[in-house]
Amino acid sequence: MDRYDPVESHPRSSKSFIYLVIISQIFGLLAVILTAVWLGKYWGGFSWTNANTVFNYHPLFMVLGLVFLYGDAILVYRVFRSFRKLPIKILHAVLHILAFLFGVLGTKAVFDMHNALLIPNLYSLHSWLGITAIIVFGLQWVAGLIGFLVPQTPQVARSKLLPIHVTLGSFLYLLVIGVCISGITEKNFFSKTYPVLKAGELIGNLLGVVLVIFCGLIFYLTQNPNYRRTETISPEHRALQE
Amino acid sequence: MDRYDPVESHPRSSKSFIYLVIISQIFGLLAVILTAVWLGKYWGGFSWTNANTVFNYHPLFMVLGLVFLYGDAILVYRVFRSFRKLPIKILHAVLHILAFLFGVLGTKAVFDMHNALLIPNLYSLHSWLGITAIIVFGLQWVAGLIGFLVPQTPQVARSKLLPIHVTLGSFLYLLVIGVCISGITEKNFFSKTYPVLKAGELIGNLLGVVLVIFCGLIFYLTQNPNYRRTETISPEHRALQE
Repeated sequence: MDRYDPVESHPRSSKSFIYLVIISQIFGLLAVILTAVWLGKYWGGFSWTNANTVFNYHPLFMVLGLVFLYGDAILVYRVFRSFRKLPIKILHAVLHILAFLFGVLGTKAVFDMHNALLIPNLYSLHSWLGITAIIVFGLQWVAGLIGFLVPQTPQVARSKLLPIHVTLGSFLYLLVIGVCISGITEKNFFSKTYPVLKAGELIGNLLGVVLVIFCGLIFYLTQNPNYRRTETISPEHRALQE
Repeated sequence: MDRYDPVESHPRSSKSFIYLVIISQIFGLLAVILTAVWLGKYWGGFSWTNANTVFNYHPLFMVLGLVFLYGDAILVYRVFRSFRKLPIKILHAVLHILAFLFGVLGTKAVFDMHNALLIPNLYSLHSWLGITAIIVFGLQWVAGLIGFLVPQTPQVARSKLLPIHVTLGSFLYLLVIGVCISGITEKNFFSKTYPVLKAGELIGNLLGVVLVIFCGLIFYLTQNPNYRRTETISPEHRALQE
């Protein structure tokens, strides 16, 4: 990716920005590792062929896809804010489609478990909001592809779509974290020793805290005006980049 | 409040804005009514002296304070964006202190129930995140009072605090909704007929959906740049207003 506006031109904000990005990545990876340990060690491990453990792919893929990759897909616009836009848009779209695929696989895992054990589907608030989030995420991805990556889309339509795309995307991300919190709550309620906090339930709670911190860092890095893309180049130059 | 920049000067955005504010208020009031009906009719009603029903004040006060009043406290900066700032700041602070007081009462209700029935306190992810949210909310209120309402606070400190105050306040609001979702999840799991969705559990789920819609509207109205305050007046004039 060609740079047109080096990060060094924002010395005021670049140092804190880099530290916060690194910390966010540590918390993002920690969330994925905690989820794997939680389900792998305390809830029976992972298997697509075992009706009792196929569920465990559900939280793992959701945290990997709809939390970690989704968060980083948002973050690329800040991390590469001084690079050309088109490659970043493609990276944003690729990370989002990966997030969506993990989300679909994660959804399949919970339906597989419910169907195998004859548990009704879609009864909980967690499932209602989760399935809505996945569907809206998919629609938002298609709208983003047509709106921002199809060259024929007129500029006026892009300008109208952009604030909706950004606001809906950010809100959906925060909603996903809320859905995760309720999912962890459900899983802990299924524990036989709860409300006594043994290692399994404690890791569940800690995972929730880590998810909130990761999401909070992504939100701060996205919202802080100092970390935004600065459009200082001429419109002609920008037209060439897009 | 004296107006200096009438809403009529933003015809492009004022009509959709007014409709969205009205819809948000309908959903906000609906959330409070649904909570009252849910607990009043299906979970035994409200009483501070009955250990089994004192809990019911917890969701009611949280939805009234930390969802409805908190949301509207954020919204006053958009609804009165063409009015002088100082009265709006005071209204923002008053709505927030009311929200906080309801939050504290709502917290007391759940501790009272747990202590009376010898249920351990603070074991769930809902409680961990909820108590953190209340504490941060209180600290944020004090920081806001010192930062923006004490006249002696230097302008440079205000400018530094403002983006942190706004970002933290918005994130905390979205976190509160996530905590509500997990709280409704817990309450439904305590139901004896669950996962069969009878009226009580259905209202719980519907309440969660209404809370998300209300929060989504507040988030959109806050984030949309068309609905932001326009600082078109001179610095001298502004200095007189603040």
